[in-house]
Amino acid sequence: MSNKSDFKLDSRLENDSIWICDLTLSQLRLIDDTQFKWCILVPMRHGIKESIDLSEPEQIDLMQESAKVSRALKKLYSPDKLNVAAIGNIVSQLHLHHICRFQDDIAWPAPVWGRQPLVNYSKQEAELVVQQIRTALLY
Amino acid sequence: MSNKSDFKLDSRLENDSIWICDLTLSQLRLIDDTQFKWCILVPMRHGIKESIDLSEPEQIDLMQESAKVSRALKKLYSPDKLNVAAIGNIVSQLHLHHICRFQDDIAWPAPVWGRQPLVNYSKQEAELVVQQIRTALLY
Repeated sequence: MSNKSDFKLDSRLENDSIWICDLTLSQLRLIDDTQFKWCILVPMRHGIKESIDLSEPEQIDLMQESAKVSRALKKLYSPDKLNVAAIGNIVSQLHLHHICRFQDDIAWPAPVWGRQPLVNYSKQEAELVVQQIRTALLY
Repeated sequence: MSNKSDFKLDSRLENDSIWICDLTLSQLRLIDDTQFKWCILVPMRHGIKESIDLSEPEQIDLMQESAKVSRALKKLYSPDKLNVAAIGNIVSQLHLHHICRFQDDIAWPAPVWGRQPLVNYSKQEAELVVQQIRTALLY
């Protein structure tokens, strides 16, 4: 049985991202890359690879959390397009990407994964973005 | 207001894919590429770019249709990983990719988009895959 108490974040996801907040099902994290406004939702359940491995109520929670994050990112940053994706070919622990894409971003129109190395935030820059997103989630 | 009667499939999606069936909200289509078992769900609503542009009941329909397609693909083809993604940087009409990925596929572990040209099915090959998926959706 999947169980919140057994949840352990994959070490690669942990290294590449910064905690924003815990929602009902998922941990929301900021990918540590100044090139994109890029968040991941990681359901706090053990052993989940695909969203269909979650229970039906959890799938609805994930959809609602994804919508909440999408609305917050859209309101804050007005992207030309949101990319919302569960890929997981490298890190199989379910994590749902939410990426603000702009026609003048470094990877446009290609997807962002595996194209260019992360450019990390300074501590202050990261804190600012994390606070922006936390605030936008309240509304 | 979004309205089913105003729905028109983007011509690039139409050219690159084959109709499988209409579900409650979405048209399910097979991407015309023998290199992957790859379907898209296209909500039959006008002017929708992001899943959050759908109404809440439609968002739930889309989630349930995505789960149904994911289960069918998993049962039929036993992929190492499913990739489920709304990208839309090139074709902005909302379409949700469902791709069976294998550790020995041509793009692994990279995402599939924009990496290699489509290799089209013969008419008979496509019909076989379409029928397999239609049947798997019934269970």
